[in-house]
Amino acid sequence: MISFECDYICGAHPAVLDALARTNLEPAPGYGFDRFTAEASAKILEACGLENGEVFFLTGGTQTNQIVISTMLRGFEGVVAAKTGHVAVHEAGAIEYSGHKVIELPQTDGKLAAPVLRDYLETFYGNDSHEHMVFPGMVYISFPTEYGTIYSKAELEALHDVCLEYRMPLFIDGARLGYGLMSPECDLDLKEFAHLCEVFYIGGTKVGALCGEALVFTDKALTPPHFQNLIKKRGALLAKGRLVSVQFDALFTDGLYFEISRHAIDMAMRIKKLFRERGYSFLIDSPTNQQFVIIEDSRIEELKKHFRFEFWEKTDKTRTAVRFASSWSTTEEDMKALEAAL
Amino acid sequence: MISFECDYICGAHPAVLDALARTNLEPAPGYGFDRFTAEASAKILEACGLENGEVFFLTGGTQTNQIVISTMLRGFEGVVAAKTGHVAVHEAGAIEYSGHKVIELPQTDGKLAAPVLRDYLETFYGNDSHEHMVFPGMVYISFPTEYGTIYSKAELEALHDVCLEYRMPLFIDGARLGYGLMSPECDLDLKEFAHLCEVFYIGGTKVGALCGEALVFTDKALTPPHFQNLIKKRGALLAKGRLVSVQFDALFTDGLYFEISRHAIDMAMRIKKLFRERGYSFLIDSPTNQQFVIIEDSRIEELKKHFRFEFWEKTDKTRTAVRFASSWSTTEEDMKALEAAL
Amino acid sequence: MISFECDYICGAHPAVLDALARTNLEPAPGYGFDRFTAEASAKILEACGLENGEVFFLTGGTQTNQIVISTMLRGFEGVVAAKTGHVAVHEAGAIEYSGHKVIELPQTDGKLAAPVLRDYLETFYGNDSHEHMVFPGMVYISFPTEYGTIYSKAELEALHDVCLEYRMPLFIDGARLGYGLMSPECDLDLKEFAHLCEVFYIGGTKVGALCGEALVFTDKALTPPHFQNLIKKRGALLAKGRLVSVQFDALFTDGLYFEISRHAIDMAMRIKKLFRERGYSFLIDSPTNQQFVIIEDSRIEELKKHFRFEFWEKTDKTRTAVRFASSWSTTEEDMKALEAAL
Amino acid sequence: MISFECDYICGAHPAVLDALARTNLEPAPGYGFDRFTAEASAKILEACGLENGEVFFLTGGTQTNQIVISTMLRGFEGVVAAKTGHVAVHEAGAIEYSGHKVIELPQTDGKLAAPVLRDYLETFYGNDSHEHMVFPGMVYISFPTEYGTIYSKAELEALHDVCLEYRMPLFIDGARLGYGLMSPECDLDLKEFAHLCEVFYIGGTKVGALCGEALVFTDKALTPPHFQNLIKKRGALLAKGRLVSVQFDALFTDGLYFEISRHAIDMAMRIKKLFRERGYSFLIDSPTNQQFVIIEDSRIEELKKHFRFEFWEKTDKTRTAVRFASSWSTTEEDMKALEAAL
Repeated sequence: MISFECDYICGAHPAVLDALARTNLEPAPGYGFDRFTAEASAKILEACGLENGEVFFLTGGTQTNQIVISTMLRGFEGVVAAKTGHVAVHEAGAIEYSGHKVIELPQTDGKLAAPVLRDYLETFYGNDSHEHMVFPGMVYISFPTEYGTIYSKAELEALHDVCLEYRMPLFIDGARLGYGLMSPECDLDLKEFAHLCEVFYIGGTKVGALCGEALVFTDKALTPPHFQNLIKKRGALLAKGRLVSVQFDALFTDGLYFEISRHAIDMAMRIKKLFRERGYSFLIDSPTNQQFVIIEDSRIEELKKHFRFEFWEKTDKTRTAVRFASSWSTTEEDMKALEAAL
Repeated sequence: MISFECDYICGAHPAVLDALARTNLEPAPGYGFDRFTAEASAKILEACGLENGEVFFLTGGTQTNQIVISTMLRGFEGVVAAKTGHVAVHEAGAIEYSGHKVIELPQTDGKLAAPVLRDYLETFYGNDSHEHMVFPGMVYISFPTEYGTIYSKAELEALHDVCLEYRMPLFIDGARLGYGLMSPECDLDLKEFAHLCEVFYIGGTKVGALCGEALVFTDKALTPPHFQNLIKKRGALLAKGRLVSVQFDALFTDGLYFEISRHAIDMAMRIKKLFRERGYSFLIDSPTNQQFVIIEDSRIEELKKHFRFEFWEKTDKTRTAVRFASSWSTTEEDMKALEAAL
Repeated sequence: MISFECDYICGAHPAVLDALARTNLEPAPGYGFDRFTAEASAKILEACGLENGEVFFLTGGTQTNQIVISTMLRGFEGVVAAKTGHVAVHEAGAIEYSGHKVIELPQTDGKLAAPVLRDYLETFYGNDSHEHMVFPGMVYISFPTEYGTIYSKAELEALHDVCLEYRMPLFIDGARLGYGLMSPECDLDLKEFAHLCEVFYIGGTKVGALCGEALVFTDKALTPPHFQNLIKKRGALLAKGRLVSVQFDALFTDGLYFEISRHAIDMAMRIKKLFRERGYSFLIDSPTNQQFVIIEDSRIEELKKHFRFEFWEKTDKTRTAVRFASSWSTTEEDMKALEAAL
Repeated sequence: MISFECDYICGAHPAVLDALARTNLEPAPGYGFDRFTAEASAKILEACGLENGEVFFLTGGTQTNQIVISTMLRGFEGVVAAKTGHVAVHEAGAIEYSGHKVIELPQTDGKLAAPVLRDYLETFYGNDSHEHMVFPGMVYISFPTEYGTIYSKAELEALHDVCLEYRMPLFIDGARLGYGLMSPECDLDLKEFAHLCEVFYIGGTKVGALCGEALVFTDKALTPPHFQNLIKKRGALLAKGRLVSVQFDALFTDGLYFEISRHAIDMAMRIKKLFRERGYSFLIDSPTNQQFVIIEDSRIEELKKHFRFEFWEKTDKTRTAVRFASSWSTTEEDMKALEAAL
């Protein structure tokens, strides 16, 4: 059975596992006060071009979203997101669990557009009742989005400008950041990206690590006071902080993170080409590692005998959109098998 | 200055104040274990035709919504509401504060239609990812709605049927219940109403009381265990439970609640007629005590010199929808002044 | 049946009820933007000698404690209280419901002593693990305490000094403030009291009002931003803010609050004398309106036929400490009946 | 620098790392629906002798405590723990963050004794005000305790009996379970242990794993409904559930978990002997891997040049209790160096 089910089907990139093995028996202090964490942080900040930034290592995406949003918002604020945003739809209410509303705005191709945001803000502050409503306190987007699409530099700048104007931090969920930055359609590099928001994270779980996300405050003045305590209060402080930082150190050595991301994108573009050449249509035109193909239900049944991929949504009575995801672990053999089957 | 600003501009109906004065110096136990509470509960349950119901008295609407929703939902559930529902928009995130998501569905004239609810539920349970999403745990509507509209008996039955099918309680916010039931367009009485949901409340704050809502579980088996403790934990248990129950006793003696509600509706229909005869149009055709009139901005400025009413929304560059609300306290003098001014 | 059960057995002082009746039909804006609220606030601030203070009116004590503590604490902080403090014991976990720990310290006669507080703080900050612990963020005491005792001016100054040194606000629960200030043993007046803490409230529910507490920030710079929104988010914003403020206006006109508090204390001292002269001992020597008498169980059964009073705790096999509470509503007849029965 | 600082100074036991490497590139479904999770669960349940149990894999101890307690408690309940319990002291208020109180009881050597628990419960239910208090909903202990001590079989049975009588689940934090079970003073094996509580976890982070705890419900009927959703809502659901289960599979193959735990205990007993023979006294007589030695401050300074160990508390002006912890990773070289230094 060959799997295109998602981008977290395998363990870690071998170089990441090697790094864990190499450092395994070196004693180190707990809770992130180890040299691995310091070194990985430095490498990440350098890659981001952030002199005054600060990095924290967490275990997963929902956890990171919950921590960032619940610690940066004030009591009377909620987080603004696209109606299809991950925090709005697929996190079991983790943000609301922290006591804050996700304010859902209309989206286009999974993206939140600057004019939509501005329009909402003007309406909100123009409403006489707004003191009885949830105040917009920060903006959440993901890059790539839930639909695999990415913001252009101009789109991100426009969105960030609105945030700055209304003094709200822009938080970018980068669970699949590598797959966004390495997309042929991306007109941003990591440094530019890092300067168009206040806080973001670099996903490891889906890009080469066993687990882990690197949370980056672009300026340490933005880090909430006693942030480690707040992480612990939410059950998310690792005793062995090194577990994640050692992995990120490997990913940010010699550009490994970008290299394996590019590999996944190459595979995704081949998947797209394979299906397109055979006349399939797509739910959305995704430039990243998730491809949403519309397939006859009967054909899906056949494919399922040899491949794993994810149900996305019914598009009509006889056809369904399914997701084929590539990742750093997609192999040439996987691709050949798919080519042969189509 | 004459006020049509809202339906809570005055204190209490004189008969309610009298009841407070009459019982004022009779010693009674605290926390709702007094005879007034027992008596008012009995009167309300009788008016509702609920033999096995249970009544609790709370101070305000947002408080009641927050308590009912947060104590009846299970951890993995959220509450379903119209996108324009009070809990979704105008309660400062009180539901999310309790850790639960408000799942917002499309509305028509402020109402949540049964087919819309069913469609959402079928999509939800048909989605392979639904275990990572917030489960629909109860349905919230208000009667009348945020726009002053009311559900017909058939609409409410259809909605309740979907709730029963999916084993979700239907909770009705009746902050203005009297003004809904006494509307000329209403085809339900209180008894019928009470049998089309699992839990609801009868608003006092806006209908004749100084403060207070009577929360009714239609069957005491539905009351969450140790409910008083849960109320106290949310800061809402009155030391003098009598404060609210004495008022409701008066409101449910000799049909006072309905009588004063009908008065408000009569006044509202006169307001509607006044504006309509003079050629004004309305934002929505409301059959209850809130009338949403569209007025030229210059005319609004003039009216403001003598009347208070509420800004609702801009409808175009030169006109605005404003709300004129009547209530039990609207007087013949108020009406005459308005008539003269128009 | 004559009741000494608690200090909230009756409605309101007649003058308070009169004020409600007198203002009843005057239209006023909602949510505390009415002239009654402005006027009552001004009277209270003047009585407190606070030029820059700010007053909010809430419905009950637990609610006020929950709101103050949860809005003033930062995410990594808890509130310090005596182990017997109301918030630690008798509020059903309302503080924890808001996500914050009550840090319980040893008490003496219900009081938290300055040296005990200092000792805890020194130990806390001296502990290498304190970054994994709940930070002390404010101090909560009540005046009088859960046992009816009061802090002397010197004790309160010492406690406040420790708070200032550690930059923590001191919050005083004054649910029974009048009964504390009017005690013959009290060496503080309201003005002095108000300058020995950052935030406190003046209890109305137990001192002459139908309901309500007047929350006083001693400097408006201490009021959390968008405080009304935070109140609403916790379900506690009254639509008719006037309900509480009109009552406090009456209580703070011509010294009524102090006069009726003194009456209650006079009655309590007579109760104490009655029991003492008959040889009864006391659980604690209370100088305020709650008297904790130790009585033979058989005698209790007899007294119960004509009087209501509260079980406090068993002191030995045959005797029990019970509470006799006086209040503004205790009458000469109540006293005579008790005298006759003893 | 040789470290006896804590039991999480190194990565994973080599066999654990090997298991990760061996399974690394095998594709598997996410969120725990992989074969590794099924296999590891089966091995653990067999080792526990639990036919109807259910296992979940989580990342860390505080997280596990927070999830178990907040999902098993009902709204009106809190968790009972020793005053020195980990959840009471060292988790930054993670339990309170979930809205529940930690009810702190007196301890002896870090343990909660059955008579102390019973006494509290009798007092609680005997108190007329208990409906205004936090109900005891479950009991939390750790094995070993915060002080390294362990419960005897008789002590655990007695405690469990009280829990059963009051229908409260007993939850045992086994972050260091292996080090407890392998203590020479322990008169319980894993099977017996697993039958003396309702839910517990087997610590991996401190006993051979990179990270992870295996949470065991002793009967799957006890698992809260939609438990995975509740885990996700708290930010703790791993995309790659295999990360933890593969490690536990290795730990529960051929008794590795017990073998490495015994090694740590052997080392700890040698540490104890070393210090004892040289006349040092101990803060507490610990039979597990944490040894609390009282040392002259001047001597501590010297030792610090070559060893890392943890400050515990000052015992008098010139001496301090410090903790020396052994673990699965303590080596013969570490021991020899310590011996030489003393």
